[in-house]
Amino acid sequence: MKTIEVDLGDRKYPIYIGEAVLSDQILMDKHITSNQVLIVTNENVAPLYLKRLEESLSNASHEVLILPDGESTKSLDSLNQIITCLMEKKYSRTCILIALGGGVIGDLTGFAAACYQRGVKFIQIPTTLLAQVDSSVGGKTAVNHPLGKNMIGAFYQPCAVLADTNVLSTLPEREFSAGLAEVIKYGLIRDISFYEWLEENIELVIKRENEALTYIIERSCMNKAEVVAQDERESGVRATLNLGHTFGHAIETALSYKDWLHGEAVGCGMLMAADLSMRLRLLEQEQVDRIKALLLRANLPTKIPKGIKLRSNA
Amino acid sequence: MKTIEVDLGDRKYPIYIGEAVLSDQILMDKHITSNQVLIVTNENVAPLYLKRLEESLSNASHEVLILPDGESTKSLDSLNQIITCLMEKKYSRTCILIALGGGVIGDLTGFAAACYQRGVKFIQIPTTLLAQVDSSVGGKTAVNHPLGKNMIGAFYQPCAVLADTNVLSTLPEREFSAGLAEVIKYGLIRDISFYEWLEENIELVIKRENEALTYIIERSCMNKAEVVAQDERESGVRATLNLGHTFGHAIETALSYKDWLHGEAVGCGMLMAADLSMRLRLLEQEQVDRIKALLLRANLPTKIPKGIKLRSNA
Repeated sequence: MKTIEVDLGDRKYPIYIGEAVLSDQILMDKHITSNQVLIVTNENVAPLYLKRLEESLSNASHEVLILPDGESTKSLDSLNQIITCLMEKKYSRTCILIALGGGVIGDLTGFAAACYQRGVKFIQIPTTLLAQVDSSVGGKTAVNHPLGKNMIGAFYQPCAVLADTNVLSTLPEREFSAGLAEVIKYGLIRDISFYEWLEENIELVIKRENEALTYIIERSCMNKAEVVAQDERESGVRATLNLGHTFGHAIETALSYKDWLHGEAVGCGMLMAADLSMRLRLLEQEQVDRIKALLLRANLPTKIPKGIKLRSNA
Repeated sequence: MKTIEVDLGDRKYPIYIGEAVLSDQILMDKHITSNQVLIVTNENVAPLYLKRLEESLSNASHEVLILPDGESTKSLDSLNQIITCLMEKKYSRTCILIALGGGVIGDLTGFAAACYQRGVKFIQIPTTLLAQVDSSVGGKTAVNHPLGKNMIGAFYQPCAVLADTNVLSTLPEREFSAGLAEVIKYGLIRDISFYEWLEENIELVIKRENEALTYIIERSCMNKAEVVAQDERESGVRATLNLGHTFGHAIETALSYKDWLHGEAVGCGMLMAADLSMRLRLLEQEQVDRIKALLLRANLPTKIPKGIKLRSNA
């Protein structure tokens, strides 16, 4: 098991990465300091990993809330559902929420923890690669508004993140690759030696070899943690984490957030950003080709979806 | 005009207190640094003070949202209404919200500012004595849940508070007295010379003489600011601000939050707390009588409402 500290002063917290951290009772006992524990998860994840988590919680009584899968769960209505559950069980300010799931569950549960009685503890147990390397780290929590994504939220840090590499074994291939886009991003924005390691070892990663998985999650979280520690509220350097996201969001918007996964749009968006940089004479063609080659080996799309109409103002 | 700084490091902010600060264009120009300004107010306050505020905003374009008066406005639905308004107008992360009203409008608008795009600026313009001396200072924002008050919220500081003593002229007598309960509270918990000043000058306050009003608001805010600076998130000394609130909440609950104003319940609750202290031999009868006398001169109730059934477990 690897441990990374996210250094945010009095809000610092550890990220535990490795095989079976979800079943690590000592780890749970350390962080579950209350008998009022609410696990929030979804109908896809619950049949796979809920029991495993509940077993490692043996010493604490707890409740479970299972929500529908999908982006539409990230709403004020679901927030209200979580708060109602906490109120009905008379949970106090010392209760703990556990988010067991991908980005939707993590963002929603984190925001509920930020709001309930003006802030209670929460633990992130991300079950997708994207959530493990990106959304579970850094404290961005939110729900969507019908007119825009992530419009209602808070910067609110978890008290621990548990990234279990075992849970990635059940992740569909496309979702796994989508997570890799964010992994490659860390290499591109600030960690060239990691990028070169990825170029050498991407096949081990694709095969989901445990050692390779632990390494990419560790290195990604380390990079993200360093950036977040410098700029928690995104007033400067944290914006570099958005590489590929401007073009990516344009793709997602054009597709009405359907068909492509977020990571796929970000991967393609990074290549588009590289291409733009080349046109501005900031990158060489050779560098752009190198990025494209790695994205292809990670099974990520490198061309915008057919059917998107381009408009020129020229 | 008096200015008090609430010293919260990078979240420090000024409270301006005095006649006509609402019409002070220089003050507005200093704090309104955006052309995206949303004023949130209610149907009672709008006819009285909205125009005055809009005139002093002459340099900034703005929108207005007028909500129903009353505690039921402090809901997730109203939060959603504010967020929808911001989204429809395409307000960005640099927009500013202005809360023009009492505690309900301040708590709701503050929470909306805390959540919108994970936090935008907001200015408090409290229009009740209670809001001026208590709820607008300290960063406690929230909405209610059907099963409990203030259950969904955030600690989130305004960028300025403008307490205009002129607006108190239209405040009904009962509401004015309810605000005085919190003023007396600061004297009791940590400022004996202020308490003695109140004993000498309460009639000037009741007459709403401007100098006396400015002084009690200033001294109350100074006390609250000092406590909040020591303990922003209520993990220790900030709990002293809750003097009278345990008994007060019991009264409010027994009345289903009807009939009595919050300040009235707190005033009576402080006397009950003093009485309990006497029974525990921590206060003398004479001191309890002194508190009762001041509450009576402030036109506050000193006996629990008739009809509340008392139960004894003895």
